[in-house]
Amino acid sequence: MMFEQGVDGFDRRDWQRSEDGTVRFALVGLGWWTREEAMPAIESSTFCETTVVVSGSHEKADRVAADTDTVTDALTYDEFLDGEARDAYDAVYVVTPNALHLPYVEAAAEYGKAVLCEKPIEASVERAERVVAAAESGDVPLMVAYRMQTDPAVRRARELVRDGEIGDPVQVHGHMSQRLMEVIPDPDQWRLDPDLTGYGATVMDLGIYPLNTARFVLDADPVSVGAQFTAEHEAFADVPDEHASFEATFDDGTEVSCTASQNAQRASSFRVVGTEGEILLEPVFYPDQTRFMTVRSGEQRVEVQVPPVNQMTEEFDYFADCLLSGASPHPDGEHGLADLRAIAAVYEAADTGERVVVGSNRN
Amino acid sequence: MMFEQGVDGFDRRDWQRSEDGTVRFALVGLGWWTREEAMPAIESSTFCETTVVVSGSHEKADRVAADTDTVTDALTYDEFLDGEARDAYDAVYVVTPNALHLPYVEAAAEYGKAVLCEKPIEASVERAERVVAAAESGDVPLMVAYRMQTDPAVRRARELVRDGEIGDPVQVHGHMSQRLMEVIPDPDQWRLDPDLTGYGATVMDLGIYPLNTARFVLDADPVSVGAQFTAEHEAFADVPDEHASFEATFDDGTEVSCTASQNAQRASSFRVVGTEGEILLEPVFYPDQTRFMTVRSGEQRVEVQVPPVNQMTEEFDYFADCLLSGASPHPDGEHGLADLRAIAAVYEAADTGERVVVGSNRN
Repeated sequence: MMFEQGVDGFDRRDWQRSEDGTVRFALVGLGWWTREEAMPAIESSTFCETTVVVSGSHEKADRVAADTDTVTDALTYDEFLDGEARDAYDAVYVVTPNALHLPYVEAAAEYGKAVLCEKPIEASVERAERVVAAAESGDVPLMVAYRMQTDPAVRRARELVRDGEIGDPVQVHGHMSQRLMEVIPDPDQWRLDPDLTGYGATVMDLGIYPLNTARFVLDADPVSVGAQFTAEHEAFADVPDEHASFEATFDDGTEVSCTASQNAQRASSFRVVGTEGEILLEPVFYPDQTRFMTVRSGEQRVEVQVPPVNQMTEEFDYFADCLLSGASPHPDGEHGLADLRAIAAVYEAADTGERVVVGSNRN
Repeated sequence: MMFEQGVDGFDRRDWQRSEDGTVRFALVGLGWWTREEAMPAIESSTFCETTVVVSGSHEKADRVAADTDTVTDALTYDEFLDGEARDAYDAVYVVTPNALHLPYVEAAAEYGKAVLCEKPIEASVERAERVVAAAESGDVPLMVAYRMQTDPAVRRARELVRDGEIGDPVQVHGHMSQRLMEVIPDPDQWRLDPDLTGYGATVMDLGIYPLNTARFVLDADPVSVGAQFTAEHEAFADVPDEHASFEATFDDGTEVSCTASQNAQRASSFRVVGTEGEILLEPVFYPDQTRFMTVRSGEQRVEVQVPPVNQMTEEFDYFADCLLSGASPHPDGEHGLADLRAIAAVYEAADTGERVVVGSNRN
């Protein structure tokens, strides 16, 4: 496929069903990601509009609302939970710290609103199960915001694997690192606080990228994991993982090897080695970088510069397209829950030094 | 360093002490690697000459000898063990199957000959210890043939790490794969026979490359390992590792994550991520490929095409230079033994599903 087409149609929206319509969003949590990534992405989207912003204080919510013409309501978290302005939005984007996803999903479900919930789905398996249960009991669509699954480069990689261009996948290696303390120069930030981040700082926030991308590209799931962490810097005193290496055996027999760090040079890569070829995406996970995809299939080799695309716009438009067309959005809650079960196993494996089978029961 | 110089002096022989002299080699084992890689490398070397070839039969030894002007003696293995023509060589290159290194090292030591022994040093920790003991009791230099340690790209990477260009190293990922059955289309080949290869097929032959290169570049050693293998293809029925993923925690705190396969697309890469930068060598381990080195240090990024060099010529000339100048060659037997202890731990970890501490005692 790649070898004939090059980048023609590389960024096509193979998922689009709707022609028009608008989904109005309440954004719950107004950190830098929401303001600098999500809101501009929504503004340049086809099917989405920000109408409600929700934060800890009226001051902050008002300040953000003032910058955006489409916003009609600026709420505090408590006002959102109480159902204020609930006629002003159709869907909710939950982008609070991990351990605070649950109450807002529960409220959204209670008010019959579709939910786009940031990954990881919650801070623990148990709380993630409650997120899924809340959406089910409210009968609202729940999608987990894995932006790589609507990223054209990752979708093309997945097609190449499905089409057998690299033979049978054998091994995956993915890496993601950044210097968290430079990205967010605050020693009290929630990603370093176990009460808010959950199991830890690095696998929950970064390791989840290569892990989930592998699940999506291979269409397979982890069965057992091994892991090793180190944490030396004082900022990581309360979490086990400043740096993390983990390896998962998937149910299709592939071995998925991941490294991630919250205190290393910003870098990211994703590689699938197959019996007949290889796919490399590098850099891959950070949205602001010029990215490349290299495919080798037998003796052929193609390297393409990935056409620039706003990953968050793709994600929001995909989600809205599903809502407008009545389709079930994916990755759904169960998919996000499977990640959290694998991640819980990774933390256990690092703690015990033993290989851990990924739990599939709700316990 | 890299950022000012580019490739000027990239392939300099920072190790060279001798100005002239010749070391005469007996090559023990005349497989394709000896004939197609080692002999041409020696022929184009500065300090080396092949004077004796040793194989299973006179016919094969004579055939190989006939192609090379410098060869004065063509011996069978038994004749070599008996010390025939021992005045015709100064050093021995042992390139038999892993489990057959020991007798030839013992004979070489008995006759006072320096030894360049292929990696891994032998088929088991116990036999590798006997190799080291033989060289010690004969008081002969023993070097293990890790060609990456005299490879200019790897040496430059090591210098960059030492010079702090990437800050503190945090994680390493290395990969090496090939389709063994296409490289050597023989189901009875020794690498698939536990009696000859030792612990297995993939980590012993390929995984050792990223592992040892990490040890050399980081100047650090593995402390504990986790591992996961799969073997499905019938050719791998007698060994545990068709595909192998393993992770080692090193004594400097770095996490070294390796993947290797004897039944996947030929590929190789080696990456060091540090707190302030990143070094990527890709492709790296196969000597016939055009190779690239990419270094990022903070905001700077340099990619260089590695100047072509014959890795085996560098290795042989380095070894000969040491002998001629009276220096102790490195990597020595103890260094090779440390690899085998780590590799034994990797096989145990994969077998038991538990993290294994790398043994340091001679048992």
